[in-house]
Amino acid sequence: MLVGSKNYRTIEASADQSYVKIIDQTRLPFKLKIIHLKTLGDVIKAIKIMQVRGAPLIGVTAAYGFALSMNFDNSINALRKCKKDLIDARPTAINLSWAVNQIYDALINASSEKRVRLSWELANNLANEDIEKNISIGMHGYNLFKAFNEKTINILTHCNAGWLATVDYGTALSPIFKLFDEGFDVHVWVDETRPRNQGLSLTAWELSQYKIRHTVVTDNAGGLLMKEGLVDFVIVGADRIALDGQVCNKIGTYLKAVVAKENNIPFYVAAPISTIDPKFSGESRNFEIECRDPNEIMSMKGEDKLGNIIEISLGNSPAYNPAFDITPSRYVSKFICERGVFDTDEIRGIVKP
Amino acid sequence: MLVGSKNYRTIEASADQSYVKIIDQTRLPFKLKIIHLKTLGDVIKAIKIMQVRGAPLIGVTAAYGFALSMNFDNSINALRKCKKDLIDARPTAINLSWAVNQIYDALINASSEKRVRLSWELANNLANEDIEKNISIGMHGYNLFKAFNEKTINILTHCNAGWLATVDYGTALSPIFKLFDEGFDVHVWVDETRPRNQGLSLTAWELSQYKIRHTVVTDNAGGLLMKEGLVDFVIVGADRIALDGQVCNKIGTYLKAVVAKENNIPFYVAAPISTIDPKFSGESRNFEIECRDPNEIMSMKGEDKLGNIIEISLGNSPAYNPAFDITPSRYVSKFICERGVFDTDEIRGIVKP
Repeated sequence: MLVGSKNYRTIEASADQSYVKIIDQTRLPFKLKIIHLKTLGDVIKAIKIMQVRGAPLIGVTAAYGFALSMNFDNSINALRKCKKDLIDARPTAINLSWAVNQIYDALINASSEKRVRLSWELANNLANEDIEKNISIGMHGYNLFKAFNEKTINILTHCNAGWLATVDYGTALSPIFKLFDEGFDVHVWVDETRPRNQGLSLTAWELSQYKIRHTVVTDNAGGLLMKEGLVDFVIVGADRIALDGQVCNKIGTYLKAVVAKENNIPFYVAAPISTIDPKFSGESRNFEIECRDPNEIMSMKGEDKLGNIIEISLGNSPAYNPAFDITPSRYVSKFICERGVFDTDEIRGIVKP
Repeated sequence: MLVGSKNYRTIEASADQSYVKIIDQTRLPFKLKIIHLKTLGDVIKAIKIMQVRGAPLIGVTAAYGFALSMNFDNSINALRKCKKDLIDARPTAINLSWAVNQIYDALINASSEKRVRLSWELANNLANEDIEKNISIGMHGYNLFKAFNEKTINILTHCNAGWLATVDYGTALSPIFKLFDEGFDVHVWVDETRPRNQGLSLTAWELSQYKIRHTVVTDNAGGLLMKEGLVDFVIVGADRIALDGQVCNKIGTYLKAVVAKENNIPFYVAAPISTIDPKFSGESRNFEIECRDPNEIMSMKGEDKLGNIIEISLGNSPAYNPAFDITPSRYVSKFICERGVFDTDEIRGIVKP
C-alpha cells in the first residue's frame, strides 16, 4: 500500500533470491526501515521480536524462512529444523503452523536438488495468494458495509489488522481501504492496543499514509464511544478461529466484543480461511495463549526530544502479559473471509477437514 | 498509610498554617516527593496537573485552597474567586464542588476576621472526616468480602482508588487493606489504566508498600482474567454517582463492569456519600465528561537508563482523550459507602435532598 507516494509490501524476495526484504515494524511509526533477512535465524528473530507480526504475515515470513534455509542446506534435517524452529517462534497464530506444515510437506516430498527453487516458488505463491485473499476480503467487506447509511461511517478497530499484518491490503482494514477508495466518508477509531501499541504505531500510521481520517484512543475508551453512539461497527482480525466460531485475537478484543453486543453494534471478524483451526472446537483453555515478557507492560519505547528512539521504564511492579484473548462466537456478527461473509454455523462448512 | 516504615497522608497542613504539604503524585512510582502549596494558585495547579488527584483528595485539597487564600485576603471577592477557580480546576469529580460549596457557604456567613481560622478548621475537619469515612468504607467492605471462601481472594481494580486518591486509607482499596490486615490472602490485579497509568504508577506502588500481592496488567487483559475465572470480584471508586446509580468513573470502568456481569462476577463501587450527586439522574450525556490533552495518549513519562524521569513521544496521530465513562447501575452489584452497603434503589434514601 501507499507510503507517501510509493507502494510497498511488508515482505518481498530479492531478485536473486539471496535475501528477503521486510519493513522493520518495531521502528514504526518513527521510521520506515527496510531490513534484509538472509538466514533462517534472521527470520526466527524477526518473528520473535515482532519486526514482522500479524498472523498472515507471520505465515508468509515463515515460508521464506524455508527458502532462505534451503539456500544453505537442502537436507531433510534442515527441513526438520525449519519446521520445528519456525513453529516454536510464536505459538498463537494458526497461520504460522498452517504455512509451515504446507511448505514442509511439499518440500519433504521433493527431491533435494529441487528444494531451493521450489521453496522460493512456494513462498512467493503464498505471498501472492495472501494478497489475493485480502483483496477478496476487502471486496466482501465492502459489499457488506456499503449499506451503512451514515454520512460518516465510524469504525472501531483493535490492534493492527491492516496491510502491515499481511503481505498487502490487510484483513480488517482491507474493507476500510475499499470503502475509502469508493468515496465513502470513513473515520476510524484506533485502539492504541497496549502493551505494544500496534494500533497507535501501525494502524494509525497506515491510515495516515492512505489519508483516511482516524483518531487514536486508549483501549479504555471504546466502551464510552460505543455507548455514546459514536461507533457504527467494530472490525478486528484474528489469530485463530475455532470451528465453533471462537476467536482468538489480540488481548482486549473480548472486552470490545461483549460491549459491542451490549450496545447492539455489529462486531465483525475479518480473516483468511487459513486462520480457522480445523482441529479446534471447545473451551478457551485449549487455545495456547502466548504470554509475553512482562517488561512489555513495564516499559515503553518512543522518541526522545532529540529524535532518538529509546525505551523508558514505567516502574518495576510484577506484571502479567497475556497477548491474546478468546471471544466466544455469540459476540461475533459475521466472519469476513476471502470466500465471502459467513455466520458461525457456516464455519465448519468452509474448511475442508 | 505505610511507605517503607513511615506513615503518610496525601495532604497535611503545616503546623503554622502557612502552607500545605502534599505528595506530588506525578513523580510516583519513581520518587516520593513532598511539595509545599502556599497559594490558591499552587492548589489549582496541583489539581490541574494532577499532583493531587482522586475525587475525595481533590475535594480536600480545594478546601485547603480556601485556607491558603484567606491567609492573604479574607474578602468576599477572594472567596468568590476561590469558589470559581477551584470548581473550574477539574470538572468531573462532584466531591470538588461539594467541598467547595460547603466551605464557601460557611465562610461567606462568617465575619471576615474569623475566616482565616475557620477556613483552616474546616479544611482540617474535611480531611479528618475523609479518613473516618474511608475507614468505615473499609469496614463495610471487609464485612461483605470476608465471606469469600477462596484460599486466595483475587480482586481486579481499575485506576487508583487507594489512599493516594483520598487523604488516607482510600475507597476501593480500603476494604482490601482491611482484608489483608485481618489475615486474608489477597491478590490484586491492577489495571495499568491508560493514559495516565494511575494503576501501574499509584495502585501498584501503594500495594507494594503495604506488602500486598499484586500484578499489573494492561487494561485489555481484564476480560481474559474474568473469563478464565481468575477474578473473584471487581472493585472501583467513583467520581460521581447519580441518584439512579449510574457511576461516572475513570475511562474503562464501563468495559470491565459489563464484562464482569457477563461472567457473573460481582462488581462493587466504593465511594463516600459525597460522591452522590443529588441533582443528577438521567442519561449519561448529562454528565460533563472531562476530555484531557490528547498528548496524554501520544506521550509517556518514565525513567530513562540514567534514572532521569523523561517524557517520550509515541507518535503524532490525532487522538481523543475522554477521562471518564458512565456505567449504568445494572452492572453494579453493590455500593459501599461510609454508612454501609447499598443497592441502587437505596441511593436516593441515603442522600438528603
